[in-house]
Amino acid sequence: MTSWVEEALYPDWGQRFACKAEVARARSPYQDILVFESASHGRVLMLDGVVQITEADEFVYQEMMAHVPLLAHGAAERVLVVGGGDGGILRRVLQHRNVRRAVLVEIDEQVIALSKAHLPGIGGDAWADPRAEVVVGDAIHHVAEAPTGAFDAIIVDSTDPAGVGEVLFTEDFYRECARVLTGRGVVVNQGGVPFMQGDELRRSSARRAAFFPDTHAYCIAVPTYVGGFMAIGWGAKDPACRALAPAEVERRAAAAGVLGTTRYWTPEIHAGAFNLPPYVADCLRPA
Amino acid sequence: MTSWVEEALYPDWGQRFACKAEVARARSPYQDILVFESASHGRVLMLDGVVQITEADEFVYQEMMAHVPLLAHGAAERVLVVGGGDGGILRRVLQHRNVRRAVLVEIDEQVIALSKAHLPGIGGDAWADPRAEVVVGDAIHHVAEAPTGAFDAIIVDSTDPAGVGEVLFTEDFYRECARVLTGRGVVVNQGGVPFMQGDELRRSSARRAAFFPDTHAYCIAVPTYVGGFMAIGWGAKDPACRALAPAEVERRAAAAGVLGTTRYWTPEIHAGAFNLPPYVADCLRPA
Repeated sequence: MTSWVEEALYPDWGQRFACKAEVARARSPYQDILVFESASHGRVLMLDGVVQITEADEFVYQEMMAHVPLLAHGAAERVLVVGGGDGGILRRVLQHRNVRRAVLVEIDEQVIALSKAHLPGIGGDAWADPRAEVVVGDAIHHVAEAPTGAFDAIIVDSTDPAGVGEVLFTEDFYRECARVLTGRGVVVNQGGVPFMQGDELRRSSARRAAFFPDTHAYCIAVPTYVGGFMAIGWGAKDPACRALAPAEVERRAAAAGVLGTTRYWTPEIHAGAFNLPPYVADCLRPA
Repeated sequence: MTSWVEEALYPDWGQRFACKAEVARARSPYQDILVFESASHGRVLMLDGVVQITEADEFVYQEMMAHVPLLAHGAAERVLVVGGGDGGILRRVLQHRNVRRAVLVEIDEQVIALSKAHLPGIGGDAWADPRAEVVVGDAIHHVAEAPTGAFDAIIVDSTDPAGVGEVLFTEDFYRECARVLTGRGVVVNQGGVPFMQGDELRRSSARRAAFFPDTHAYCIAVPTYVGGFMAIGWGAKDPACRALAPAEVERRAAAAGVLGTTRYWTPEIHAGAFNLPPYVADCLRPA
């Protein structure tokens, strides 16, 4: 008989995976962590019953979370990854030749440990890269204590705004992000699936708008973040960062060393992702 | 206790809906038909255990299946809808002012009857439109018997290529589509979710390529066609049809009377949807 793992994100709709084997399970001070071997998507990481990443489709989310802000900035040398304890975004950030320092601040050291042990391909060599600094701690405090202008880009790879990830969607956090970013700095954050979680995007957009001249979102279609497009929240000090033609994006990607390494991101997808369907764009307006 | 309806599309992964009530169930000569009231997505139509449409997200699929080929053609007057017994594509086709005749050929009259009775908002007034002709029958025969050059656009809103929909993915069918289309004619078809069903897109693309100078696909993110982007197969006699800038798409949409009526389709989404992620583009190349 098939054993099923059912995602607990929504009470009345969601996905389920046939489970071949449970690989690891832990109760950290912050959340329940589960790694299992699915029949369909390779290994799956769940936190509090919600899919964070699967081996089969992680490339979509990681590529679009890392390459879009870094190439939009164009010369990002210092990058902060908030959350992202699986290492997948860190790995993509470090693909960029011009990145000199990437700091990952993850609150839950057990997520890092279990990812290294059981999902080694996701972070790959990133953990050992001399440009990487891994901090186990609270990103709120880390950002509050960072010097002004410490980072060129901030990538918030958080859980949904309930439980441990909640503080990463507050006004205080975005104020601090704006302060520690350089003059052309960009912050992006996991903004949920608007078809199911439109209020989440609406609230976080309104908060970003108070501190960033250019607040927007871009859409990505992640197979196991079910429910249509996921929105990635966008806050930039310089509106020019998201007004790039595909040819310029391509030029930058070639210089950075990421062109031709991707399975979802392309220069055209990058530029086009900022064009939102009206049902998503509606979430960017105040209620 | 919650009663769940689990989609049977894939053996080891899929979505499930909390079911408030079963609305109608029938066994037609072709398939099992189920309409139920979900807790999350309004009413849901399933054929042989596979989600066809939900009231909540049908707009994505219908808009992108109807508006893209019609506006790409630019002056489509006669349109054939194959399948589509819920009436949703027919309704969007008839929004276009220049459409003079829309023929819907659905093999299963019970799908039409149950949709009219239990999903009346999907087809809306389309069923009574004097420009609409509804044929209950086999689209293969209908297309084979149609005069050469009878249609400007063909929209194949079929089930997946197993069971009743299988013949709509064959070489014979595409040959006949090419014959009955006018000189700038376009055919589009439901091409599955490439992340899960890449072989389906690969096979149907190869078949279309034998009869259409321009074979491609475009991507749409439909919330309840889970698994990331769905690909819509594209076959056109004139490559110019998909090379339109958003400004020209917008001009045509305004003239047709559809601009501003949509919740997913926009001129920019239209033009950008033809830019495929590499993992989808890979499916368009012969194996």
